[in-house]
Amino acid sequence: MQGTEQTERTPSQPAAYTPTDRTVPTRAAHRASYDRELVHAILDEGYVCHLGFVRDGAPVVLPTLYGRVGERLYLHGSTGSRPLRAAGQADPGLRVCLTVTHVDGLVLARSAFHHSVNYRSVVVHGVAHQVTDAQEKREALDTLVDHVVPGRSRDSRPADRKELAATAVLRLDLDEVSAKLRTGGVNDEPEDLALPHWAGVVPLRKGYGTPVADPDLAPGTELPGYLAAL
Amino acid sequence: MQGTEQTERTPSQPAAYTPTDRTVPTRAAHRASYDRELVHAILDEGYVCHLGFVRDGAPVVLPTLYGRVGERLYLHGSTGSRPLRAAGQADPGLRVCLTVTHVDGLVLARSAFHHSVNYRSVVVHGVAHQVTDAQEKREALDTLVDHVVPGRSRDSRPADRKELAATAVLRLDLDEVSAKLRTGGVNDEPEDLALPHWAGVVPLRKGYGTPVADPDLAPGTELPGYLAAL
Repeated sequence: MQGTEQTERTPSQPAAYTPTDRTVPTRAAHRASYDRELVHAILDEGYVCHLGFVRDGAPVVLPTLYGRVGERLYLHGSTGSRPLRAAGQADPGLRVCLTVTHVDGLVLARSAFHHSVNYRSVVVHGVAHQVTDAQEKREALDTLVDHVVPGRSRDSRPADRKELAATAVLRLDLDEVSAKLRTGGVNDEPEDLALPHWAGVVPLRKGYGTPVADPDLAPGTELPGYLAAL
Repeated sequence: MQGTEQTERTPSQPAAYTPTDRTVPTRAAHRASYDRELVHAILDEGYVCHLGFVRDGAPVVLPTLYGRVGERLYLHGSTGSRPLRAAGQADPGLRVCLTVTHVDGLVLARSAFHHSVNYRSVVVHGVAHQVTDAQEKREALDTLVDHVVPGRSRDSRPADRKELAATAVLRLDLDEVSAKLRTGGVNDEPEDLALPHWAGVVPLRKGYGTPVADPDLAPGTELPGYLAAL
């Protein structure tokens, strides 16, 4: 994968992002983390983020594919889509908030009040810029494809010039970033423990079904190893 | 469940939401839908949305639990959380964009350019208001709990007065709403069909693991049927 060497932390990067007014939660501060490796791990486990931006003074939140190279996120879109057009027009870029959430379990307490979910989320604040350099754009598109299915970019036809021109890629640096997590079991009040309600955690699972091949596969095309391994 | 009768469409409600400038996409318009039943089905399949709002001119996107009663969404939060404090202070409410996304499959085309995901999403634009009526708040909390696990609200201790006061609930009407979907297989260019790359769709699965009981369950507490059925 392109840019793999950038995923190593350099000596100049501290182990944690610096908290800011925006990334310190007003509540449940014990669930917040700024740990760089934790943030990377949460980001790398997903490939669809929810990208927020402001249009005509109102918020807009759109599901968007992303990939990470070191301390940069790349976001995928068509040149015709609203956030990407806005980022291209605006100078210096588009102010965004990018959020990735994994829900790991349902926390069923004896009391309705203490019901919760176990989750891991990352929120990134920043200014996204359109990638204009052709080589960076190619590498970003490889990253996006490989972020969804590792190894896939080498097993597909690369974008040609026309396709590259029709694809917009935004870059967002990881700078103002926080993670938030809830893990563990139920937190019922001591006086509720004797209640007859079942309490505990229901884990959530994500997985892959059997790949469905395109009916027009070239003769002899086998399921590649990187898909069989999913 | 409270308010079930409201989930029926009344004769005054058309079968589709009215498109607006905000809900008509600038691209891939064939993937947009305003069908009320489709929107409801997508919303009812999830329970975590991504809620966007504007703070100090910048976008903020936070994962948030929600539930639906007819043409209303209820959103859960603490009274100390930022969006809920903002909604309480602001008059007339907090402008939000609420997005729910289900990713159904990975679409692996022969060309990098035509890689995609199959998904169903709903985007709701509107103004969220804090629920202040105690009865509506109780019903909204039941809705939120039952939205995650149907039948659960009846099998838990309801919130007491102090807990109700510590919980904030936002209401958002379904009015300016759209769904967006991608379904089906790969859309490769005809000249790429003979390429030796595997192409097709990898379905994504979501499921539940084995429930993990709290170690302090009251003696004799069995796993309830609504959990065994998950």
